[in-house]
Amino acid sequence: MSDRYYEDFKVGERFVSGGMTMTEAGIIDFARQWDPQPFHIDAEFSKKWIYEGLIASGLHTMSATLKLWLELGVFRACSLGSPGLGETQFPRPVRPGDTIRVVTDIVELRASASKPDRGIGRIRQVTINQRGEHVMEQETTVFLKRRPLSVASARS
Amino acid sequence: MSDRYYEDFKVGERFVSGGMTMTEAGIIDFARQWDPQPFHIDAEFSKKWIYEGLIASGLHTMSATLKLWLELGVFRACSLGSPGLGETQFPRPVRPGDTIRVVTDIVELRASASKPDRGIGRIRQVTINQRGEHVMEQETTVFLKRRPLSVASARS
Repeated sequence: MSDRYYEDFKVGERFVSGGMTMTEAGIIDFARQWDPQPFHIDAEFSKKWIYEGLIASGLHTMSATLKLWLELGVFRACSLGSPGLGETQFPRPVRPGDTIRVVTDIVELRASASKPDRGIGRIRQVTINQRGEHVMEQETTVFLKRRPLSVASARS
Repeated sequence: MSDRYYEDFKVGERFVSGGMTMTEAGIIDFARQWDPQPFHIDAEFSKKWIYEGLIASGLHTMSATLKLWLELGVFRACSLGSPGLGETQFPRPVRPGDTIRVVTDIVELRASASKPDRGIGRIRQVTINQRGEHVMEQETTVFLKRRPLSVASARS
């Protein structure tokens, strides 16, 4: 994918990521490090628990979502980071063997009032499993670099 | 800390975690796996970039925040997971060498209308660095198990 800048995006554009399969070992590994609650790390306990089986940490699903999104390279040239995330929902658990992918829509674009080098974007991401069910829904604000002036001049 | 259930919490209670120092190696490790953007993984590039040095992935700060919170064990007996997070802000970057800790306030408690075994809590978490500056602000909804009946009977 060629380098894209703030000016190159349109509200309504959609990007679909590749898939990532969440293994039991990967779920337990992540959770041992960051979210060591029994329903994320103890397969035996989890069988008898309310979710009837091991489920991935929500932060693991968020991390996998970000990784899948970055692999697309859509903001590679223009990402200036994010000041924060909107509400994040986990409508369904992610279980071992689930393959997730991320559908990203550009929902808002506006110039920065204070910083002329950038625009402010808002993306909505829905992470789905192999049955197309939503496992995560989130909006994120992103700072996007404007096309560098020299390049803009060369094109005009 | 003894086991606490939904009934045992009060709005306004505050819990302060221990500290975690974010090393350069740890920041790069996390980001390589989940958020491989140059300003999280490339110390040389980062020096010349807008943040003037390596900064931790926001997801790394979120993960460290959760780990520090869980270490307190406040919800150990009663956590039934979370359906989602409120808005998350990153007002300041986390840099190598920063020691962060988490201040958690209970801001809302209500009975579940549909499930008699639990209450619904809302916690507000502020993650601060060694200078007391906010590096993350977040609210999370949590499902909290009510005190098991047999125990309640034994106490009455």
